Amino acid sequence: MTGAGLTEVTVDDLVDLARGAAVLGTGGGGDPYVGRLLAEAALREHGPVRLVAPDDLPTDACVVPVAMMGAPTVMVEKTPSTELVGHAVTALAEHLGITPTHVACIEAGGVNSTFPLVAAAQLGLPLVDGDGMGRAFPELQMVLATLDGIACTPMSISDEKGNTGVLRTVDNRWAESLARSMTVTMGCSAIISNYVMTGAQAKSALVHGTLSLCVAIGRAVSAARSAHTDPVAAVVGAIGGAVLHTGKVVDVIRRTTTGFARGEAVVAGADGDLVLHFQNEHLMAMRDGAPVVTTPDLIIVLDQDTGEPVTTEALRFGHRVCVLAAPADERWHSPEAIELVGPRYFGYDTDPVRVMT
Amino acid sequence: MTGAGLTEVTVDDLVDLARGAAVLGTGGGGDPYVGRLLAEAALREHGPVRLVAPDDLPTDACVVPVAMMGAPTVMVEKTPSTELVGHAVTALAEHLGITPTHVACIEAGGVNSTFPLVAAAQLGLPLVDGDGMGRAFPELQMVLATLDGIACTPMSISDEKGNTGVLRTVDNRWAESLARSMTVTMGCSAIISNYVMTGAQAKSALVHGTLSLCVAIGRAVSAARSAHTDPVAAVVGAIGGAVLHTGKVVDVIRRTTTGFARGEAVVAGADGDLVLHFQNEHLMAMRDGAPVVTTPDLIIVLDQDTGEPVTTEALRFGHRVCVLAAPADERWHSPEAIELVGPRYFGYDTDPVRVMT
Repeated sequence: MTGAGLTEVTVDDLVDLARGAAVLGTGGGGDPYVGRLLAEAALREHGPVRLVAPDDLPTDACVVPVAMMGAPTVMVEKTPSTELVGHAVTALAEHLGITPTHVACIEAGGVNSTFPLVAAAQLGLPLVDGDGMGRAFPELQMVLATLDGIACTPMSISDEKGNTGVLRTVDNRWAESLARSMTVTMGCSAIISNYVMTGAQAKSALVHGTLSLCVAIGRAVSAARSAHTDPVAAVVGAIGGAVLHTGKVVDVIRRTTTGFARGEAVVAGADGDLVLHFQNEHLMAMRDGAPVVTTPDLIIVLDQDTGEPVTTEALRFGHRVCVLAAPADERWHSPEAIELVGPRYFGYDTDPVRVMT
Repeated sequence: MTGAGLTEVTVDDLVDLARGAAVLGTGGGGDPYVGRLLAEAALREHGPVRLVAPDDLPTDACVVPVAMMGAPTVMVEKTPSTELVGHAVTALAEHLGITPTHVACIEAGGVNSTFPLVAAAQLGLPLVDGDGMGRAFPELQMVLATLDGIACTPMSISDEKGNTGVLRTVDNRWAESLARSMTVTMGCSAIISNYVMTGAQAKSALVHGTLSLCVAIGRAVSAARSAHTDPVAAVVGAIGGAVLHTGKVVDVIRRTTTGFARGEAVVAGADGDLVLHFQNEHLMAMRDGAPVVTTPDLIIVLDQDTGEPVTTEALRFGHRVCVLAAPADERWHSPEAIELVGPRYFGYDTDPVRVMT
């Protein structure tokens, strides 16, 4: 589950990168089209962004992640200006009196893997080829860094109006609570920078090679389409896992509450209905009332014909889709990790169910 | 409406000060008993706090106000430790790289006039004999400083758990919105420090002599009780205004929503019912469906026998009370001020009605 190690990201990589990131985003992490547009503007202005593998980070590197927080449903309508993206990083750096040496991604997702490219391009810094989860999750504390004891705060949070906050919290869960309520007040989307790490910490706490993998997934889909082979099979080939279900979306219930896009979708297929439960990301797939795959493993919805990932906010009646499941980074299956991101945390009364591969 | 200029506040002044502050708090600004206890602990440990009249502030003084934010209903049950009070001031000072020379009060109120005493005592700083309103109001932007164009932020916000934030907002209304949502998440009460001012700004933007006036009000009540004269008349003598109504509380509807204690109370008397509308503070008194007095003038509820001020969270069925009204600082009656704190801002469809004296 790793891509060939890229050394830079150019404008030409962005379609594939954003597509692959949205695959790993498991329905969340933002719209890949919005993400690509943002990164395209920044890369056209500032040139390609150099990628650095976590293993190649200097031990004392100052790695500063950046992300969008909020409901992806809102991000689609309230795209931030490119100038504002670097501001979250510099606001935090100024507060801390530090000089960032590298930018990093908190999660994989259509916006949250391309957004850090914007910051890196603007600030003239390299981007770490990795991310904090190997997928997307809905809450701030849900990164492998939390399991490593790395603090989410000091963190910065900014909006497109020019409001900025710097938080210091007693734990990463409180960072989530306070930043979430601010995000809601800011209009359900905000730009954040948090989990500042040394190079040594980043090497341990990040999933390695995420951006290279995103590009590899995107390219596999492009190649399959050119070769008139199955793009869905190409995605499975790139990330592992299995096709859970093929069918038509016949029902979507969506509520934007407490800063999240929550809901359920029913996919009717030849072998019955598959019900997807999501909170920004797909967290549980059920068949006949029983969970088939749950968080932390990845549940991914792809367009049946094109292999394009479908985010939870883009799910609509009549869409013909394939639902895949793929294994999460193995560290997400420890007992501590299951407490952090397992189905019970999200209110689903079940033990985790792993994808069978 | 000014008290004799005190030069210091000692432990012996606290009962009178907290009582007088709760009178000016117009039902809000916190419980005077809680406020007194907090200040008593700090003054017993650190000694008296020196008061400085706004006119005596050096032009380049660095005046840092401190206050509690949230629902007074919650403050009563969630009293902060005295150690935490100074922290809000130092958190903000460290962020700004400034050295506070004076502490100040944002509003007059049972807690918000005694709380800054705690910070001043702990930090060994003098306290300005004034406040930002001459009364209490429910939202952060509702200070005379806003009318002077002084920014609420940078501001700090802290809770008793150890979470801290520093905000920079585009205007004072956004400071209110973001700090309010954080306060709700922090458990409906928080410690804030904001409206950092120079001595010259403080001289213009503060109401002068508030703390001396609080002590004078409190002493007038004590003296009336000792002399077996009417303590309610003593309060009117100290602050001006008039008795609107005397009667028994026969109904209280109270909702703690969006971080405020909102509600209505009905006081039945010989000349009919007076209905009090409050949002932390009393904002409108109505008789026969018509407003008798509204914000920005002060509506004050006192115990009929003892003259003790009754906060909105302490209103209860059967309580025999007098309702007074007193004139607000004249600056609150300008058209810009009425936009900021007039009845329409709070959703009452009426022009302001001033107390007749």
